[in-house]
Amino acid sequence: MLNIKWDEKGLVPAIMQDSVTGDVLMLGYMNKESLEQTVESGHAWFWSRSRQELWHKGATSGNYLEVKEVRYDCDVDAILVIARPMGPTCHTGEQSCFYRRLTPADLKD
Amino acid sequence: MLNIKWDEKGLVPAIMQDSVTGDVLMLGYMNKESLEQTVESGHAWFWSRSRQELWHKGATSGNYLEVKEVRYDCDVDAILVIARPMGPTCHTGEQSCFYRRLTPADLKD
Repeated sequence: MLNIKWDEKGLVPAIMQDSVTGDVLMLGYMNKESLEQTVESGHAWFWSRSRQELWHKGATSGNYLEVKEVRYDCDVDAILVIARPMGPTCHTGEQSCFYRRLTPADLKD
Repeated sequence: MLNIKWDEKGLVPAIMQDSVTGDVLMLGYMNKESLEQTVESGHAWFWSRSRQELWHKGATSGNYLEVKEVRYDCDVDAILVIARPMGPTCHTGEQSCFYRRLTPADLKD
């Protein structure tokens, strides 16, 4: 069994990347159960830190992430899921959660 | 000033993506100072959780990440850096830290 380095809350960060466009769509967190569900079901599942529950992404909106490939990093403490989104990934309606650019002015007091 | 949601350790996860190939290269963690250094210097800087110090990626290897764009997500708790790597990003010599594929067998006891 792969020895994933879960953090102190039993979670690992999981990057979602669009299998067609290559865009980074979102960063979520998975616990053991959601990672297993992701691999078994072919849909991305997360642990919702705000709601403290398993989260089947798209269950409400229909915007599932269809998993094409799951990868893990050299330290086994981060996951990369390459997936096809069935609609906008972001709850704002944007395709990607990373729709805003940070400028130097954003870091000024 | 952008109200970044730092975690309880004062860190935010930062995804590095190759500006040319679109590959996801690594996931690192930034504190306020390393994010400022990243934006000001044009090189990716991190907080090394293992060494507990500021980490100028590439300072030892020469494999700097030249920053093209910094983005942040809808919840302002994750960063995406689009960058050109000056060499392999992973300490193993691989281009990306995500060089291994997870299979269902990896999750079996």
